[in-house]
Amino acid sequence: MTPLKETIKRKPWLGWVMFGLTMLVVFMLGLLVNSVMERRTEALFINKAMTDVKPFESKNEVWGENYPREFQTYYQTADTTFSSQYGGGKMRDMLADDPRMVVLWAGYAFAKDYTQGRGHYYAIEDIHNTLRTGSPKGPQDGPQPSSCWVCKSPDVPRMMDKLGVDEFYKKTWASLGSEIVNPIGCADCHDSKTMNLKITRPALIEAFKEQGKDITKATHNEMRSLVCAQCHVEYYFDKKSVEGAARVKFPWKNGFTVEDMEKYYDGIEFTDFVHKLSKTPILKAQHPDYELHMMGVHGQRGVSCADCHMPYKSEGGQKFTDHKIQSPLNNVANSCQVCHREEEKTLIANVNERQQKVHDIRIELEDQLVKAHLEAKIAWDKGATDVQMKNVLKLIRQAQWRWDFSAASHGASFHAPLETARMITNGMNKVAEARIELSKILVSLGQTGPIQYADISTKEKAQQLIGLDMAKERADKEVFKKTVVPQWLEQAKKKELLFSTGNSK
Amino acid sequence: MTPLKETIKRKPWLGWVMFGLTMLVVFMLGLLVNSVMERRTEALFINKAMTDVKPFESKNEVWGENYPREFQTYYQTADTTFSSQYGGGKMRDMLADDPRMVVLWAGYAFAKDYTQGRGHYYAIEDIHNTLRTGSPKGPQDGPQPSSCWVCKSPDVPRMMDKLGVDEFYKKTWASLGSEIVNPIGCADCHDSKTMNLKITRPALIEAFKEQGKDITKATHNEMRSLVCAQCHVEYYFDKKSVEGAARVKFPWKNGFTVEDMEKYYDGIEFTDFVHKLSKTPILKAQHPDYELHMMGVHGQRGVSCADCHMPYKSEGGQKFTDHKIQSPLNNVANSCQVCHREEEKTLIANVNERQQKVHDIRIELEDQLVKAHLEAKIAWDKGATDVQMKNVLKLIRQAQWRWDFSAASHGASFHAPLETARMITNGMNKVAEARIELSKILVSLGQTGPIQYADISTKEKAQQLIGLDMAKERADKEVFKKTVVPQWLEQAKKKELLFSTGNSK
Repeated sequence: MTPLKETIKRKPWLGWVMFGLTMLVVFMLGLLVNSVMERRTEALFINKAMTDVKPFESKNEVWGENYPREFQTYYQTADTTFSSQYGGGKMRDMLADDPRMVVLWAGYAFAKDYTQGRGHYYAIEDIHNTLRTGSPKGPQDGPQPSSCWVCKSPDVPRMMDKLGVDEFYKKTWASLGSEIVNPIGCADCHDSKTMNLKITRPALIEAFKEQGKDITKATHNEMRSLVCAQCHVEYYFDKKSVEGAARVKFPWKNGFTVEDMEKYYDGIEFTDFVHKLSKTPILKAQHPDYELHMMGVHGQRGVSCADCHMPYKSEGGQKFTDHKIQSPLNNVANSCQVCHREEEKTLIANVNERQQKVHDIRIELEDQLVKAHLEAKIAWDKGATDVQMKNVLKLIRQAQWRWDFSAASHGASFHAPLETARMITNGMNKVAEARIELSKILVSLGQTGPIQYADISTKEKAQQLIGLDMAKERADKEVFKKTVVPQWLEQAKKKELLFSTGNSK
Repeated sequence: MTPLKETIKRKPWLGWVMFGLTMLVVFMLGLLVNSVMERRTEALFINKAMTDVKPFESKNEVWGENYPREFQTYYQTADTTFSSQYGGGKMRDMLADDPRMVVLWAGYAFAKDYTQGRGHYYAIEDIHNTLRTGSPKGPQDGPQPSSCWVCKSPDVPRMMDKLGVDEFYKKTWASLGSEIVNPIGCADCHDSKTMNLKITRPALIEAFKEQGKDITKATHNEMRSLVCAQCHVEYYFDKKSVEGAARVKFPWKNGFTVEDMEKYYDGIEFTDFVHKLSKTPILKAQHPDYELHMMGVHGQRGVSCADCHMPYKSEGGQKFTDHKIQSPLNNVANSCQVCHREEEKTLIANVNERQQKVHDIRIELEDQLVKAHLEAKIAWDKGATDVQMKNVLKLIRQAQWRWDFSAASHGASFHAPLETARMITNGMNKVAEARIELSKILVSLGQTGPIQYADISTKEKAQQLIGLDMAKERADKEVFKKTVVPQWLEQAKKKELLFSTGNSK
């Protein structure tokens, strides 16, 4: 007989106590199951679609009738109260913060205007307002092609469906002003029937094909990044494939690294713009966010964009994806702390440290690049020849591509800090070689004394140096905003493209 | 009546089944407690000290009689079978792998001989063999001071106690050859009475004092790194504080970053050697392993050196610290996987990726630095003046310090990859400025054509370039190994400094 059995035989009440405890546990379990069942019933009730959402429905508010929680959190991307330090809403003027960039982009629209992005809610308003889109007066006016709309609105897949993809890409930006009016939203990433995640932009589908992959085979977890990768990637305007069209295309054929994409661009002899001072054929990086994320440890561990930027949230027993897309640093508890057990302030300090270190070396590279452009200008002015300058310009192109790739990617310094630092060092190496060659050329042209670099301590001085008439740019934009934009919106309302209580179904 | 109670009333056998299950669980618990108690008894028996270990006992074998598991694993540092890629035992010739280093260290003993370290077990043998310690014939011969012994043996604290610290530091390396004979071991890190971790080297205690900290207040977890930090740090030989002594000192007063230490060295106008080609006053980095570890995420999270390099191990129910100090990549299951849930091959790939990226940019910096030294040599040869060269040499000094700090630290590219990359970029920036100035100086001295850089594709060619007579160095060393070393060991045996079964107590 075991000791326990013997004890129970001597003290029979002990058996009853144990029995009672067991019953209590089972009873509590019953309560829990009941509560879970109730919540599921509630969830079923809530998830019932009330409105029939048509394919290519671009009005976010219509989808919002069926999915109020997702819509309301999406709508919070209008919030601009968060510190701009964390990618929040206040529009920091990046060129005023760092006028070097004006010089680096001399000859390109980014030198005119480059402000920190705001939430998706402002996509349409901000593309109207930026000086980069210019001030077209009529539908055939430039400067931009329709491709500039591609990442701004769920009206884009609607119009691509209506016109055909190639025809869409043949249009000017101005000619679609009354059609593309709803900011980035539901139809950009979701199927209207199943609410499954959906790729709506042809460029990503084509990029997968070029890599020999089929995007329809992507898992749900991969889709939680790929819907973002429709836009948050490096791309360019391919004007060769279809006559008269500027197709958005990803340079992914050789891979994701800065060298892979450079090889691609060099292969097709692509240049975004010729630098106004140094005459360098420059590659402008867009925002290779997805690519750099995939090269960092979070991407390597299978963490998706949505895991941190759109973490799950609970409200009234309902678990849903928070559609207030924002910096995880505004929401550490639901993003970082799902995996990391450190305190919020520690985690934020860790991110800031990475960003600061990468920022510091990026600025060093910018300083070198600015000098290279200014020195090249002096060399040209003193009569340098194309033959003399050929290798210098090649090196400046390579260095600036590495700088821009690391600077343009949102959050690269966190997503892949070491890869970003590697690119910057590599760029530093290239620009060093360029400047060493330049210094020899300059001496040979009679420039023996120290070089007087132009004053670019403010955005205004830098813009003046590169010959921009900012007063005119701004005045034209004001006219555009007061005359053209209101007409666009008026026409859109007439076409029932904008939501009002009357056209929701 | 609850549903459960009712069920039991209807089916009374159900109550007995539950009761039986409960008893079974309690019985198993009893068995478990019994087993735990037995193991504790076994442990008490095992941990009983058999031998009385004297203070400053330098023979590791004597300690090993009391702590056979720790000793046997320590003894496994003799193992050289592991791949040298992971810091294992095979002595890779670093200069043959990368002859640039020969040029960078021209004028310093490292240009003669620099092999990858082996286990602690080989500390004495390897310091006898390296060409860096030269071939002294008598006790007063150079080239090295006694400070070179400091990190090699538990005979060092014994001799410091016997002679006094300052007197120890006044000796030559050769004069202590018959005293310092046991390789790095027990008495370097442990107290002989309590077996507590103990700081035995004065430099670390003094460095803490200089920072206003008291090392006796360190926690046990901190001590699991600090005993390593007695040696695995940046240090220099302070020849100013005590007349005739070369005291080992840490440049920690301003902090741990490469800039902090540079400020310290500049402040005391310190130079390790003057570069033979470029005449640059060079700072040679030792191995700032601890400092860089503390700046990386593992250090920031409180992971100690021992956690990964000496993880806990179980044998026969006994848990103990594995004293086979080695790369965690040889022992992923007990090191990385205690915290990280990824597969071994994934974790190893992650480490290799960091190391490869840092390695690649480090080599780029080396290429620039080698060119800078060679170009400076040409400038001197062509008659450059001190005034012309002053700023160039300052920049080369700064760039090489950043390179060496990142290269000399074992595992920096894993311990703190971003900090390491930041230093390298910063070094690249400095050397670029140096070379741009140099190119102007060279043109002004008539060097207008392209520069023909010397061939340094092999270690031999590089050593020839910097004027080393390696055949003589090696022949002298052979004589030293055949005549002097055997005498040292013979004398040590007579003094009973080396273990034999006769002198263990």
